[in-house]
Amino acid sequence: MSNLFSKSRVEAFSDGIFAIIITLLVLEIKVPHIEEHDSATSLLEALLGLLPKFLSWIISFFTVAVIWVNHHKLFTQFKHLDNGIFWWNAVLLLWTTFIPFPTAVVGDYPGNTTSFILYGLVMALMAASFSGMRFYVLAHSNLLEENTDMPDFKKGTYYSVAFGPVLYLLGALAVFVHPFAAFLIFFAIPVYFILTNK
Amino acid sequence: MSNLFSKSRVEAFSDGIFAIIITLLVLEIKVPHIEEHDSATSLLEALLGLLPKFLSWIISFFTVAVIWVNHHKLFTQFKHLDNGIFWWNAVLLLWTTFIPFPTAVVGDYPGNTTSFILYGLVMALMAASFSGMRFYVLAHSNLLEENTDMPDFKKGTYYSVAFGPVLYLLGALAVFVHPFAAFLIFFAIPVYFILTNK
Amino acid sequence: MSNLFSKSRVEAFSDGIFAIIITLLVLEIKVPHIEEHDSATSLLEALLGLLPKFLSWIISFFTVAVIWVNHHKLFTQFKHLDNGIFWWNAVLLLWTTFIPFPTAVVGDYPGNTTSFILYGLVMALMAASFSGMRFYVLAHSNLLEENTDMPDFKKGTYYSVAFGPVLYLLGALAVFVHPFAAFLIFFAIPVYFILTNK
Amino acid sequence: MSNLFSKSRVEAFSDGIFAIIITLLVLEIKVPHIEEHDSATSLLEALLGLLPKFLSWIISFFTVAVIWVNHHKLFTQFKHLDNGIFWWNAVLLLWTTFIPFPTAVVGDYPGNTTSFILYGLVMALMAASFSGMRFYVLAHSNLLEENTDMPDFKKGTYYSVAFGPVLYLLGALAVFVHPFAAFLIFFAIPVYFILTNK
Repeated sequence: MSNLFSKSRVEAFSDGIFAIIITLLVLEIKVPHIEEHDSATSLLEALLGLLPKFLSWIISFFTVAVIWVNHHKLFTQFKHLDNGIFWWNAVLLLWTTFIPFPTAVVGDYPGNTTSFILYGLVMALMAASFSGMRFYVLAHSNLLEENTDMPDFKKGTYYSVAFGPVLYLLGALAVFVHPFAAFLIFFAIPVYFILTNK
Repeated sequence: MSNLFSKSRVEAFSDGIFAIIITLLVLEIKVPHIEEHDSATSLLEALLGLLPKFLSWIISFFTVAVIWVNHHKLFTQFKHLDNGIFWWNAVLLLWTTFIPFPTAVVGDYPGNTTSFILYGLVMALMAASFSGMRFYVLAHSNLLEENTDMPDFKKGTYYSVAFGPVLYLLGALAVFVHPFAAFLIFFAIPVYFILTNK
Repeated sequence: MSNLFSKSRVEAFSDGIFAIIITLLVLEIKVPHIEEHDSATSLLEALLGLLPKFLSWIISFFTVAVIWVNHHKLFTQFKHLDNGIFWWNAVLLLWTTFIPFPTAVVGDYPGNTTSFILYGLVMALMAASFSGMRFYVLAHSNLLEENTDMPDFKKGTYYSVAFGPVLYLLGALAVFVHPFAAFLIFFAIPVYFILTNK
Repeated sequence: MSNLFSKSRVEAFSDGIFAIIITLLVLEIKVPHIEEHDSATSLLEALLGLLPKFLSWIISFFTVAVIWVNHHKLFTQFKHLDNGIFWWNAVLLLWTTFIPFPTAVVGDYPGNTTSFILYGLVMALMAASFSGMRFYVLAHSNLLEENTDMPDFKKGTYYSVAFGPVLYLLGALAVFVHPFAAFLIFFAIPVYFILTNK
């Protein structure tokens, strides 16, 4: 028993982290500096120049919202939290807290291949942590709620690999076709989750 | 049932985000740089130069507090949270987390028309998300608590359009009369909510 | 009833804000820039030069901790939260969220009279919000728990004026004697609260 | 009774602070500036140059996660929270909120002896606060849950000195052998806690 964690405190701790990340993302958008302080057109142009930052911010915002939903749904299926789940969760949080960094890199260098590879890689690592947690729980099925549909959970685990790390790595590679293709894939992933509710 | 969210976790997540935004607003006010470190008058003058930043900070602080109150009151009327409410709430949070940015822009460029239009536009989008959520719930009235006064909720929904997005867009347009007129309207909206308790 | 707030949600919201402020304070201490990256003595000297920032950070940290304790103790005496308490609480939170700014100003300009006057003034406004909330509740004593010792609460309210805004204003004025005198008073106030447990 | 604190509110307050620190750590990693915006190799090189910052971030992330786990486990053994525990907890939080600063210093000056001594010192002070809290509770054993194994708690308290402040000070001293030796010890401490689950 001493190796078990209070589920509600781990959930509250994770929720707190998700809430902070989703809010911090906007801090990477800095107020532009313009010479003529009162020129409406200069400021408008400067703001329009931030468009890539706005886009990468919106994509990351909805991505973190989808992470929260998936986390919420996965945790309702856990009966107990042992050390294994706790540290898989910590790895998931590690990559999730890192998201503001690649988001800012893509926003600053939207025409640079490296930006998109970094973004896709971090998201793939985050998504792989979800899959890792699921595989761990599959191997320790006593941690799951009694009413869990095991074949369904197994199927969901394989799906989470395909629609998670694999798709994000494909998105990273799509940059060699066109940066816009990567943008589109990174944007499509959370939209797909939102519309299908997975 | 699998498409329903835990109301208390969504409330806690939203509350966490509101608490972070309201606290982050002050970070946009940077310590001024003065040459003579020990000159009391130089520092006083530099601080007085930050007055527009202080004003925009106070307006945004009370605006977020009013958003929290409205969110709190609206959510007490919901019986269940489905995907629709969840994602309307996410859109509301998106625009709310964005508030530190237009607040800083207005604080940096208080004499610039574009600043006020941006501020009014973001606030209008935030307020429109509230109205959107209300219209969605009107069309799915099974999500509301049994004791809800439906004609009253309907009236409140139309009011939320008039006193929300419409008023903020008017505030944005008022800048063409005088920047001070926009300031006044943006300040009057939360004050009105606080005094009338809506 | 529609004008009453859920006490636990207002407490959670306030606690979230206190937790964020107490953590953000350290962000105002920036890593110093030194020319010789590997010189241990240069870095040591640069860090020692940050001593005023460390001191003002520690004072503000314990001041916010004391605010949390006082908030915690005051709220246990409230039976209901009406609009009045809610907005007095919002004003208290306004000045509390502002604390990182005067803390950074004192840390950057520790030899400047204006810094200490600003710090004392903000703290006085924060402390005055506590007293304001107490006077409001005295005038609406139906908001207090039945077992409240009214004469004791009244005495505590007058004390909160003397040991709050008055003492902070005295601290601000003490700067005209010597900056160190102000430092000492600002430091002594939370220490006194901690040792006496008020 | 008036000197006792609500355990759940103190836990929630501490959890909030841990969640914020663990998330803020990444803010110290700034997007690098490169001249040729679209050069994939320049950006890659610039990102690789941030490797020391990534490493110090990961070490601090897992260190804070271990602090959370230790805090969680220690608090389940407390029956009541008195002023003593509350202020020992505040001192622990003080040093924990400070972690982003030495983390950033090590990341910026990874070849500098002073960085590692600062890092080890702050971590030693944080760990010493844990030990201080344990010694305080040992001397006020009525604060512990009835079923506490006292000899085991005593042993754990002595262990917490050896594996906490002592080990961190040794890590700080190890820098005089080689900076990498200090890095290794600071990395090994949370890893040891994670693997042994202490």
